[in-house]
This record gives sequence, structure tokens and C-alpha cells, in this order.
Amino acid sequence: MFARNAWYVACTPDEFADKPLGRTICGEPLVFYRDGSGAVAALEDFCPHRGAPLSLGRVCEGRLVCGYHGLEMGCDGKTIAMPGQRVRGFPAIRSFPVIERHGFVWVWPGDAARADAALLPALPWADHPEWAYGGGLYNIGCDYRLMIDNLMDLTHETYVHATSIGQKEIDEVPCSTRVDGDEVITSRFMNGIEAPPFWKMALRMNGLPDDQPVDRWQICHFTPPSHVLIEVGVALAGHGGHAAPAEVKASSIVVDFITPETDGSIWYFWGMARHFKPHDPSLTTQIRDGQGRIFAEDREMLERQQANLTRWPDRKLLALNIDSGGVQARRVIDRKIAEERAPSGAPESSW
Amino acid sequence: MFARNAWYVACTPDEFADKPLGRTICGEPLVFYRDGSGAVAALEDFCPHRGAPLSLGRVCEGRLVCGYHGLEMGCDGKTIAMPGQRVRGFPAIRSFPVIERHGFVWVWPGDAARADAALLPALPWADHPEWAYGGGLYNIGCDYRLMIDNLMDLTHETYVHATSIGQKEIDEVPCSTRVDGDEVITSRFMNGIEAPPFWKMALRMNGLPDDQPVDRWQICHFTPPSHVLIEVGVALAGHGGHAAPAEVKASSIVVDFITPETDGSIWYFWGMARHFKPHDPSLTTQIRDGQGRIFAEDREMLERQQANLTRWPDRKLLALNIDSGGVQARRVIDRKIAEERAPSGAPESSW
Amino acid sequence: MFARNAWYVACTPDEFADKPLGRTICGEPLVFYRDGSGAVAALEDFCPHRGAPLSLGRVCEGRLVCGYHGLEMGCDGKTIAMPGQRVRGFPAIRSFPVIERHGFVWVWPGDAARADAALLPALPWADHPEWAYGGGLYNIGCDYRLMIDNLMDLTHETYVHATSIGQKEIDEVPCSTRVDGDEVITSRFMNGIEAPPFWKMALRMNGLPDDQPVDRWQICHFTPPSHVLIEVGVALAGHGGHAAPAEVKASSIVVDFITPETDGSIWYFWGMARHFKPHDPSLTTQIRDGQGRIFAEDREMLERQQANLTRWPDRKLLALNIDSGGVQARRVIDRKIAEERAPSGAPESSW
Repeated sequence: MFARNAWYVACTPDEFADKPLGRTICGEPLVFYRDGSGAVAALEDFCPHRGAPLSLGRVCEGRLVCGYHGLEMGCDGKTIAMPGQRVRGFPAIRSFPVIERHGFVWVWPGDAARADAALLPALPWADHPEWAYGGGLYNIGCDYRLMIDNLMDLTHETYVHATSIGQKEIDEVPCSTRVDGDEVITSRFMNGIEAPPFWKMALRMNGLPDDQPVDRWQICHFTPPSHVLIEVGVALAGHGGHAAPAEVKASSIVVDFITPETDGSIWYFWGMARHFKPHDPSLTTQIRDGQGRIFAEDREMLERQQANLTRWPDRKLLALNIDSGGVQARRVIDRKIAEERAPSGAPESSW
Repeated sequence: MFARNAWYVACTPDEFADKPLGRTICGEPLVFYRDGSGAVAALEDFCPHRGAPLSLGRVCEGRLVCGYHGLEMGCDGKTIAMPGQRVRGFPAIRSFPVIERHGFVWVWPGDAARADAALLPALPWADHPEWAYGGGLYNIGCDYRLMIDNLMDLTHETYVHATSIGQKEIDEVPCSTRVDGDEVITSRFMNGIEAPPFWKMALRMNGLPDDQPVDRWQICHFTPPSHVLIEVGVALAGHGGHAAPAEVKASSIVVDFITPETDGSIWYFWGMARHFKPHDPSLTTQIRDGQGRIFAEDREMLERQQANLTRWPDRKLLALNIDSGGVQARRVIDRKIAEERAPSGAPESSW
Repeated sequence: MFARNAWYVACTPDEFADKPLGRTICGEPLVFYRDGSGAVAALEDFCPHRGAPLSLGRVCEGRLVCGYHGLEMGCDGKTIAMPGQRVRGFPAIRSFPVIERHGFVWVWPGDAARADAALLPALPWADHPEWAYGGGLYNIGCDYRLMIDNLMDLTHETYVHATSIGQKEIDEVPCSTRVDGDEVITSRFMNGIEAPPFWKMALRMNGLPDDQPVDRWQICHFTPPSHVLIEVGVALAGHGGHAAPAEVKASSIVVDFITPETDGSIWYFWGMARHFKPHDPSLTTQIRDGQGRIFAEDREMLERQQANLTRWPDRKLLALNIDSGGVQARRVIDRKIAEERAPSGAPESSW
């Protein structure tokens, strides 16, 4: 159960630099490669000749050549050529709207007629000289909504990540959640606390003292279909926190693009865009490695939570104040899915 | 298909010494831990907040703290506390009757109102200074009744354990089976034979000669739901065998507690209580290691027998005289299951 | 969906030299062993006593002794003896027609009354002093017909085996297919080309020059149920190719016996019978190792093609001229299956 008329992160360009990439997105086995113009193409991973996966083939002068019998596929899903054959009558395979932007490849698994590049999320930090980005990819065996829940309720950091980024104040300070159209924002502001190790490091990198009280913030932004961007940072206490001038703060954006692979598994693109020391690649590596270790701690919890929910499909979960971010996100998702299923001529304003 | 209103061995205390233990018993995912009073608790392994397995959490001052968002669970299945929450209205999870006794943790997966500690099996050898015990645990992919069959028909020793404890006389001497209430007893007495290596060793340990004919016995006791205790031993020939005075014999009890994990898999707690040299821990280790190797020989046979029976569900198996122990045990089991399903007010004497 | 009234290669004699071999053929778990007369026997791998797999037992004086409780099984599926039991009333298990010939064990999974040794394929190269054979066995997760398709359309060599036996001419020269009764023959003749490395080596072995143009042939013979034998070779150009006299050519037969294990997996017996240097066992080893590496390249393609076809069961595949060998082979197979299902008295000539 996921929206299909939406842009999902499918992969990063380096994943198909050498050969085509096969990857299932929203239940569709797809192949990604770069066509003759250098643009990314996304097709069904199914050769119309005998059903071989095209991702086992290779790209030759911009054509995707099937690795079984040499059928040459075009980026529109129509066969271009095949040794010894007339291909005009070959059935086409489906091609999917795809855009390369901000370092990611975005695919639209649903109705191609509705694909609109303007619906891609704006990522002001991407390709911005004052920001640096590093991230990775995990495959996790859970419904994508469990990961959204996870990220919209950061009290779990105190428990799942107790030895790294958790701190008791996250548990103690209530969050507030609001909905702004399709966006759900859950915020927590912890004022006058001691900075945890990561933020002490960041303060020092910015030439700020690390032994003074800080105001810390966590602002989780959910946008459909399943993106969560989290503004995080600290400012020296008393300067306005999140609104403080740049000279007294350090901040990042935790980036989470969650793409359903199947009903019970996800491609989890995680990363951090930081607004300090952007030109230090070793710092990027260091942060990415640390984040990778921390985010790996969620895997067992999510997979076993999924197993429990599969075992007891009828049990109702609690929806506490800390869960309201996830609860509201699910409402947005449900509305989007219902809109897709409605007759296309139906007024969408009824929602 | 197993009785639920019965005590099953679930684990041993060392398995949850450091952290809670998650284990599925009779199809129920359970968590075991020690509460504030030091008593063992057994709960559904399901946090009422978001369905996380509680066994991924930790015990803090006797409370089971969920490792996802910090819900604190009491041993009665009621939430005690959660950071920032009023928990009075939280749904309870199921707690299971559980008793620690004889070095094992016993759980009652069925109707808690019928749980009665008096129904625990008496194990006279446990905690007895003249006896020593060592054992282990295997997880095996078969219906629990196949393991009962295995243990109630020891002719398999001649074939499965041909290189260790089997001897031709087991095959040659008929067994006799009788039913005493819920107990099924299958006995075999082999008189005037040469002792096999294990028993020669035991005789020497007891200061007896190992080069004289012995009377050997195997008396298998099945009791519901799925326990098999086997009296085994040898006496110098002509002194009465099993009834011979202690000075001329060596004896043990093979201990088999078989606990269904699912319909097609078991937790197999095996061990040996011996009535000789009880104060020799290295002998305990030596016997346990040897028994572990021998009992591991049954695994492939049982798992592939299970696969065959799953493949041919309608084939009737033979019930020979050697099978009568298992056949009678299944009758007791079937009666117990039928009793559970009968209306509670129904007269049980009709059986 | 496979024919059952047919001879399939089940195993090679070395596979049950030490102990019985359990192997599923056409969905039937079977056990193979050598009986008291030295003949191969094939039985259901199911002990009538308690359903244990007989293949876990051993052969003792030509009897198959169950490894669980010692039942002694005869090669006709009737129990011969069991310690302490009268076995006359024991139910028989099914025995299967089986023949050892040409270095293989052939089994007939269907109606035993129709098994006829005369239906075994003639393999003139087997046991012939001028030919040598080497081969191996792979288990692959695909419908057996995908492997037939693979072998009846060798244009895949250019792509799947691009770095070994593929050459562009295979793609460029059309094949022709004809049907002769139950046999399907697909032929390709490439005249005046450069020999690929394998055939250069073969020419040298025959004392022929390897730097001259050759005529190369590939003649694929499908016969039911699922055997593919491929005549391959080269002759010095202009001497008649396949029909050239022996002094100017080198030739082999690629041997492919494809036996369904289940609906979605096969036992693939592959090998090469060569008509040059037959008395060089190190050459046999060298060719077998090379062929094994090349044929392993098909596995991923076939297993992922199968996954695609399972994912999209309703998609029609193309049937191009290059596919006509496989298409015709499937027609023969379908006809054979239909004949099996027809009432036995129905006239078969209507086909």
C-alpha cells in the first residue's frame, strides 16, 4: 500500500556507472542506465523477446543490449534492433519517468501522464557550496511506514541509539506536531542543555566553545510519498535557538528517502547535509561512517517489529503524542492513495 | 496440535541472565526475564505501544524496558510507566504462568486459571546430592510427536546411533508397553549381555568390574504434554537388574523435555541425570558432550522424516509393537487436547 | 508440466557408490542404490514403517536397510524383513523402472507398464573407443523448458558466453529448423570463418592447421522428454563442412540431459563427447572444466528469467526464427503430455 504517482529515490548515479542496475521499486522490477544522450532511463527489467532481465545486459552506444540474445532496447521501451530480426512489431515494455537531480535518481512508478518535475522536492542544501552531503543505502525488511514512524518520533534515539546520539532530554521534552497541507512537521526544542558529543564536535568546527549550554532543536519534516528531512542543530544558549544567527550555531539536515521495494521491504537512502565545514571531505566520510553505524541499529528493531505486526495483524497500536508525526504522515499517505484510486475526473477538493 | 494447559520447559535461567530472552513456545512469541522480586516473568513479546519485541529491551530495576521508546512493562503485562505518558489506559499484554524449578523455567501457554504448580513433574534426581545433571538444547524442525516417537522406541539406537550407544540386543529383545493413567511406560530388559562402552565406564566409576555379564534396562516414561524420562542402567548379571541393590549397579535417567516452538519445530531440552560419581564436574561435561554428539545424530533423520510426512500427508504409518509407546503417548496427547477443547463444565470422566 | 512416461537421466553410478542416493525427479523423492544382483534400483524414498527417507540408510547384502529402525527393503518396493516383525502385511512402496546405460542411470517416473528400454536414446558415441566423454551436473532453479530454449537457440553464446565460445558469426548466420517425428533439429552452418580458440585447439590435436578458414556447424537435436544433443565441429573450408571426410575435421557432441526436479528446478547433466584425442584423460578433464565454467554462466540468466516469468505469468514471449527450435520442442512436449493424459485406449494417431 503505497502511493504510485509520486517521485521516489531509486538509486544514485554511481550505482549504474559500470553496468545497468536492476532494482525493484514499489514492486516493479526496473532497470536503470544512461542512454545515448547521457540521460538516465528507467524501464521494466524484462526483455520482450524471452523475458530475460535487461539488467544482466550492457549499454552499448546508449542502447541497452539484452545479455541473453542481443535485443537492443531504447529508452522509450521500444526495441531498436536485434541481430537478424525485424523488430517493428515487437511489444514495447514500460518506460518510467525518471529524473536525475540533487545527486539522486528519482522515478515515478505510477501514471506517467501525471509525472511532473515540479513535484520533486526542493533540496536547498543540495549543490550548495556552503553545504556538504554524505550518505548511504540500506535494504530493510519492513513496511515503509514503520521507518516513517521511526523518524517522526525521535524519542527512540534514547533507547535504540543509547550509546551514540540518544540523550535523556529527548525523552523529557515534549514535541509538537502540525500539518501544513501535505507536509507534517514535528518539532522538539531542548533549551539550555549540554550538547551531546556530535554537536560539541560541530561547535568546535565552527570556532565556537563546546563547554557552554546550548539550545538544541529537532524539526522533522515529512512530505509524501515517504521523505523525511530533519533539521537538527545547536546554538549557544539564549540566542534564539533554531532562529539564532549563523555565527552562534551549527546545524545539519538528516536526510531520509524511504522507497518501498515491496510491501514488506524498503530501500532506505539515509544521509546528512551539514552546514559547517563543507569543504572537508574527510569529515564527510567520518560523519557518514558514524551515521551508518547508528542507523544500522534500527534495522533489527524494525524487522522484528514488522514480524510482530505480521504475526498479530489485528492488534491496534497506540497513537500517543510522540506518535502524532507518524500518525499524521499516514493520514497524508492514505489520502494520496485514495486520490490515486478515485476516478481521475473526481474532484480532489473533497478531501 | 499440542496441549496448551500444561507445563512446558521454556528455557534455563542462564539464558536470560544478561538480558531478556525472546522465545516462541507453542506458537506464542514470549519474553522471559527476572522481575524486581527475582522471580521469572513470561510475557507476550509485544510492546503495547508500537508492537516492538520487548525482548530487544533491557531489565531496569525489575522492570522490562522496551528498547524502542522506553515503555516500562510490569510482570503482570500492565504498563508501569513511559516517559511523558499517562499509561493507565494502555492495553495490557498477556502474562503467562511461569515457574522456575529443577534448573528449568516452566511455562503454561494455555488458560492461566488452570495453571497449577502441583502439576509440575516431580524430578526426584534434581537438586539431589547423589545425582548430577548435565544437558543442552537443540532446535529441530519437526512436529514434537516425532521426537516422542523417537524416544519411546529405542530400537533406533541400533541404526541412528550405530557407532555410539546402539547394540544389536536392543533390536532383538522385545519391549513391553503399559499405560498408567496419563503415563506411558515402555520397558526393555536385556539380561546377561556385555555392557556397551558407556556402561563399562560407569561400572568402573562405581568400583565394579566391567568384564562381567550385566543385566541392562531401558524404561521410557512418557508424561504429558511431551516429557520423556528414560531410566537406563546396568547391574551385574543375576542380581535382579533394575531391582538390584545399589552396590552392584550403575544407573542414569535420560531427560527429554520436548517443547513445541511451532507446529513444525521444537525446542529439545536433553540431558542426563546420573546416579554415580555426582561430584565430578568434568565427568558431567564429558557425558554432556558425548550425549550432545549422539543426540545430534537424530536431527537429520527427524527433519527429513518430517519433510516426507509433509510431502505425503495422507499416508498411514505403521504401528508395530515397537511403536506402541509412541502410539499410546499420542492417545494421551489427543485426549488432553480434546479435554481442553471440551466445554469446561463437561464431565472429564467420560474419557 | 512434464511428461512422465519417458526416460530421464537421474544420476550417474558414482553418486551411489558408497551409500544410497536420495534425489527428487519430476517431483518424486526417489532413492537409488545397487541391489543384490548389482542392478540399480529406484524406489520412493519413504520407509513404509514411519516415513523416514530410505536414502539415509545403507545397503547391506543388496537390501536397502532403513537408517531409522532397520526395515529391510527389496528392490521391488516390498519389505523383506525387519527385526522382530512379520512384514508380510507391510504396504509396498513404489518402485520405478530404471536402467543403467551409457554411464547414466535412467528412470521412468510414469506408468511402469509403458516403460520400454527400446525407448532409451541411442548414444553412438557412448562406450565407443574413438570417442571420449566428460561432464558434470548442475542444479538450476528454472523450468526445464527454459533450458531447452537456451540450447536450441545458440545465438545466446554471443552474449552469455561472449568471453569464451561466442562469436559474432553465430548471430549473423540464420539457423534452420525442421521437425522429424518427435525430433526437432535446428542447424546453423558458418562457412569460411576463423575458428574460435576451442576449435583451433581441436584442429591442432588432429594434426590439422589452425590458421586456415574453416566451415563450422552447430546441429541441435531435441528429443523428448528433454534431451538436447548438439553436433558441433569445424572442417577445413571447402571440403564439405559437416559432411567432410574425417581427415580434415574435428568434431564433438555437446550432451545435455535436462531432468525436472520440480516444476521450477532442474538437474542439468551436461557434458561433451569428443571425436578427437579420445585416449587423453587430461584433455577430458581440461575440456570438462572449461565447459563447466561456460555452462555456469547460464545459471544466473536462467534463474532470473524464471523469476521474471513467474512475476509476469501472463506475458507472451516472442517466437522468432531463432526460437523455432524451442517452440517446436515445446509442441512435441505438449503433445507427449496430452497423449499421457488421454484415455489409454484412445487412438494416438489423431495427433
